[in-house]
Amino acid sequence: MQRYFVEPEAIQNGAVTITGDDVKHIVRVLRMEAGEQVIVCDGVGHAYLVELTELGGEQVVGRIMEQLADTAEPRVKITLAQGLPKGDKMDLIVQKGTEVGISRFVPLEMARCIVQYDQKKEQKRRERWQKIAKEAAEQAHRTLIPSVGIGMTLKQLVGNLDGFDLVLVPYEGEKARGLREVLQEHPDVGHICVVIGPEGGISEAEIETALAAGAIPVTLGPRILRTETAGLVTAACICYQVGEMGG
Amino acid sequence: MQRYFVEPEAIQNGAVTITGDDVKHIVRVLRMEAGEQVIVCDGVGHAYLVELTELGGEQVVGRIMEQLADTAEPRVKITLAQGLPKGDKMDLIVQKGTEVGISRFVPLEMARCIVQYDQKKEQKRRERWQKIAKEAAEQAHRTLIPSVGIGMTLKQLVGNLDGFDLVLVPYEGEKARGLREVLQEHPDVGHICVVIGPEGGISEAEIETALAAGAIPVTLGPRILRTETAGLVTAACICYQVGEMGG
Repeated sequence: MQRYFVEPEAIQNGAVTITGDDVKHIVRVLRMEAGEQVIVCDGVGHAYLVELTELGGEQVVGRIMEQLADTAEPRVKITLAQGLPKGDKMDLIVQKGTEVGISRFVPLEMARCIVQYDQKKEQKRRERWQKIAKEAAEQAHRTLIPSVGIGMTLKQLVGNLDGFDLVLVPYEGEKARGLREVLQEHPDVGHICVVIGPEGGISEAEIETALAAGAIPVTLGPRILRTETAGLVTAACICYQVGEMGG
Repeated sequence: MQRYFVEPEAIQNGAVTITGDDVKHIVRVLRMEAGEQVIVCDGVGHAYLVELTELGGEQVVGRIMEQLADTAEPRVKITLAQGLPKGDKMDLIVQKGTEVGISRFVPLEMARCIVQYDQKKEQKRRERWQKIAKEAAEQAHRTLIPSVGIGMTLKQLVGNLDGFDLVLVPYEGEKARGLREVLQEHPDVGHICVVIGPEGGISEAEIETALAAGAIPVTLGPRILRTETAGLVTAACICYQVGEMGG
């Protein structure tokens, strides 16, 4: 069944009002009619079965039939702090990371980033990534839209790690301690931060900064993953470890 | 250290002859000189430390200093039989799948494929995918270049499953049996085939065909992965399970 995200305020007294691009999708693309059903999520974790009642050019209104059990959100929250990559790779990272189950993305300015973080483009790019996250969340049947945070430096990040039970840094220089070993040592984590370096990797000074803040460098094995692959693979392995990847 | 793949025949009597695009990369891009070292892999599992001796416009010759221990190939071989996706998604699948550790890709013609498999373009496309696999293998520090097979139908695939210890079919319709459960039930598998449907999914008739051939449908959890994401995520979880993702 088709799924749409709305703002929490769009749900009131058992009725849902859908606006924006989704109206066009429902009315013109799918040519739905009153009486047909969709799933509506409020983006903060609730999903509802909704019967459409009024379909107009500007808005679509529906009636909530029942609240659905939330099953698609992993019980472990994963934040991906991603060293800003080149070109449009961050688009891929946000899309694939959302599918796999990441809850939050933080673009990270790091020493070896090839692109400079442009403050003026900040707002526009975050809007773009947030839109990609919304569409990927709909497609993946998630009930939460991952948030894309404001770009920050590693120093700023390590000053804000209080909410995390575990901070992992996949690092080519770490040869001994593996991802699985560390995850198995921490079976009850609720919120994990994964820090991924940009194309050029993480500098030694950055590893020192992360270590001093309690982060744990880990190896993902002998194959070297690209920056746009490492975060989603780490997230998939975390979900697998906690039984969220089927089983 | 820079890595290059050569044909096995290019290694003779302790000397390596590098030809083709890699010559330009060594001589013009990296401006390497005699006495400098690179790693050369023969693409079938052997890696050598090589000191460059002669650098010309057409070929670069080097001397083998030592054979390196093969550590980057996963002990489980994974074949990805991928329902042919739209556009250039197969490029992404081959690149990311190679990074994660897949050994072989088989493009699959399936009932719900949106693109028709074009026999005339077959050769050109396989060459393209094979090139992507080679470049990704170099970057990921693999010693084996994954092979890209000739496109086949599911019927043809199921007639050729003898070499596999386990055939997994991630399938939206499977709600009970999870990937982890099945992998844990088969701890000693040597060669796994993963069958991924195209954008439109796997048809019920195809699931019946796969089941009859001994394949096991599994769920990857409640989040619905896109066709280009499912194979690499499954491969990453297989590698994680057998201790190949930093274990």
